[in-house]
Amino acid sequence: MSEVRNKAKQAGSAAQILGQLTTEQKNEALLAIAEALITGASEIIEANQEDLQRGRDNGTPESLLDRLALDNGRISGIAEGLRQIVQLPDPVGDTLETIDRPNGLHIVKKRVPLGVIGIIYEARPNVTVDAVGLCLKTGNAVVLRGGSAALSSNRKIIELIHIALSGTAIPPDAVQLIEDANRSSVDEMLKLNGLLDVVIPRGGSSLIQNVVQNATVPVIETGAGICHTYLDASAEPQMAKEISLNAKAQRPSVCNAMETLLVHESFAAAHLSELAEVFKEAKVELRGCPLTLQLVPWAKEATEQDYATEYNDYILNIKVVSHLDEALVHISKYGTKHSECIVTENEENTVRFLNEVDAAAVYHNASTRFTDGFEFGFGAEIGISTQKLHARGPMGLPALTSTKYLIQGSGQIRK
Amino acid sequence: MSEVRNKAKQAGSAAQILGQLTTEQKNEALLAIAEALITGASEIIEANQEDLQRGRDNGTPESLLDRLALDNGRISGIAEGLRQIVQLPDPVGDTLETIDRPNGLHIVKKRVPLGVIGIIYEARPNVTVDAVGLCLKTGNAVVLRGGSAALSSNRKIIELIHIALSGTAIPPDAVQLIEDANRSSVDEMLKLNGLLDVVIPRGGSSLIQNVVQNATVPVIETGAGICHTYLDASAEPQMAKEISLNAKAQRPSVCNAMETLLVHESFAAAHLSELAEVFKEAKVELRGCPLTLQLVPWAKEATEQDYATEYNDYILNIKVVSHLDEALVHISKYGTKHSECIVTENEENTVRFLNEVDAAAVYHNASTRFTDGFEFGFGAEIGISTQKLHARGPMGLPALTSTKYLIQGSGQIRK
Repeated sequence: MSEVRNKAKQAGSAAQILGQLTTEQKNEALLAIAEALITGASEIIEANQEDLQRGRDNGTPESLLDRLALDNGRISGIAEGLRQIVQLPDPVGDTLETIDRPNGLHIVKKRVPLGVIGIIYEARPNVTVDAVGLCLKTGNAVVLRGGSAALSSNRKIIELIHIALSGTAIPPDAVQLIEDANRSSVDEMLKLNGLLDVVIPRGGSSLIQNVVQNATVPVIETGAGICHTYLDASAEPQMAKEISLNAKAQRPSVCNAMETLLVHESFAAAHLSELAEVFKEAKVELRGCPLTLQLVPWAKEATEQDYATEYNDYILNIKVVSHLDEALVHISKYGTKHSECIVTENEENTVRFLNEVDAAAVYHNASTRFTDGFEFGFGAEIGISTQKLHARGPMGLPALTSTKYLIQGSGQIRK
Repeated sequence: MSEVRNKAKQAGSAAQILGQLTTEQKNEALLAIAEALITGASEIIEANQEDLQRGRDNGTPESLLDRLALDNGRISGIAEGLRQIVQLPDPVGDTLETIDRPNGLHIVKKRVPLGVIGIIYEARPNVTVDAVGLCLKTGNAVVLRGGSAALSSNRKIIELIHIALSGTAIPPDAVQLIEDANRSSVDEMLKLNGLLDVVIPRGGSSLIQNVVQNATVPVIETGAGICHTYLDASAEPQMAKEISLNAKAQRPSVCNAMETLLVHESFAAAHLSELAEVFKEAKVELRGCPLTLQLVPWAKEATEQDYATEYNDYILNIKVVSHLDEALVHISKYGTKHSECIVTENEENTVRFLNEVDAAAVYHNASTRFTDGFEFGFGAEIGISTQKLHARGPMGLPALTSTKYLIQGSGQIRK
């Protein structure tokens, strides 16, 4: 049996035990892991040094090495993340619905764990612990396939987790690390119907697209965000400036950052040239439609391709529109249904925008950067779903659960 | 542009309008369709005759011809189904969650339509109308790909639906029929990411497996049911007999029918030979484990393969087990997580069975045949989901919706 299949099976057996544990038992195990990571920090750092050295030898870019690197501070932060998960309410066992049928059947719909979750991610050892924490808290076993560049770090982390779990109610087999660094181990995971209940990709768009295109196991797609902010005719100018600057430049590399600013022509005539200066100061490159170029002659010309690009960088498209409908059409055409914002003082346009824009999160007078599990108050985030099935938008712990109908009868049969 | 892509795009444009309609507007349109089907019944029957003649010429089995056939009575029943959908509450627009954040953001999670739903099904024209009714009621556009053996019937039905819709608020383009009878049109639908929000297969296991194995679009898997009934030591004998007979023989062809009866050894010693006679009278072929064969010498011997087979027929496996745990292990090994039942008077075993069995519906002292949207009181059923994502078990109208976060601010930006 292959490593992937074997470990997924072991995870499945462990999931049956794990799914029956109390919140207290799960929390104790998470705290034991947090402690083990702190105690074993020097071992983790040593293993991490191997990964970093290998990365440097292979010419890995500094930004990727930074995401891979662990030190005492980062390990403390990771352990603290686990302790925060302990504090969150456990959704498993919640009653979602109770139905009493005329024939006397009593039907209760309860939250249950999904079962076994596959996580496919990049060379970020913090994701290893984060995924373990979120999955175990919700009673799920987890099969991890992290980027091979972090394999030494992940091996050590999982070794410490297994030792920690062996003293708790959670079977160590509930956490499995795929060590096969070949791409084929990912391909195999994506086809493990019956052994994996869901696969969640966490990483860049090529990783996510590979999972979406090749998985036969159900997937929760996360990621792509071409987000817009529309400044309506009645937008309050100072608010418009602050929100659009924040949406673009506070952290351009993330999926909820703005890529295109849509501006009503009357707002543009009054304020766009001034607004452009603000972006210039923030070192944002501007690419504009012909009308924008009239007002901001130093901007580049935006192409069709630009409107369809998630820059994740200090680049912004600006398009002047003659009315709300034109903005809605543009968003419908180029948006990825992630996060969209209108800045306006007009009630009717607010309602239309909120209702008609098809996206996970639609904002009135607030930055799209708030699309985030922590900002929504979930206390944790598995990712931001960009699909419409199961979960949409920031996913908290309930997104890692399924449901089960429990039916109590007294001999009922179907006529 | 191919027919599939072109029609999916048209459906997408219609979905934007449809998604904004009121419940009343949608209900009016459904009633208009119901009336048009009744008025056009003779045209439908004429088209249906073409399909039936073609089927007979091709040597289609009688059972399949029966599922294809329409007459005035069946068309009335189909129209009545639409009127029942009109009576159901519209889930779209429901508020599921309200969050007020310390920074003043007001977040509301609302139910919204999924968007465009692809339905892939067999030569059953009643499913055409049923799917249209369920999708339109929930504000979704629908792209239908029915079995080619029903193409004439489906064409006529869709023609009548389009005429009926042209006098309503729902754009006729919200309902699309793929007429390309080649398998490649199905394959193309399964890869239409971005144009189809979900594909739901309705039909036999080979149809469903083709969809699950080849779709890159999110899928709701429905179907396979290897269901068990476990008669515990303390089962009330009369109840045990009625429930197990009902689960097997009331309608063996459906997914919630029982395939294997598990019997505690003490119950078996006292009652199995009598119970076997009941199944014999009901013309159910029995296949037993070695202990069963001692008590029911005329039964066949059950193989490993038998335990893993969904007969959908008058055949039943019987296995004697020495305790609850053995039953749980058997269900975990051979079950498809659809519907499972324990018949017992023992409180502790009831709780263990309900909690530990991993299935969409778990029963105590009632027949597994109740796993059904109508029997659960949903008033309609899109199918029975056998996956754990999005929806599990019988799916009512809410299973055809997604959610959207609407966020109202007053200039909030992220620090």
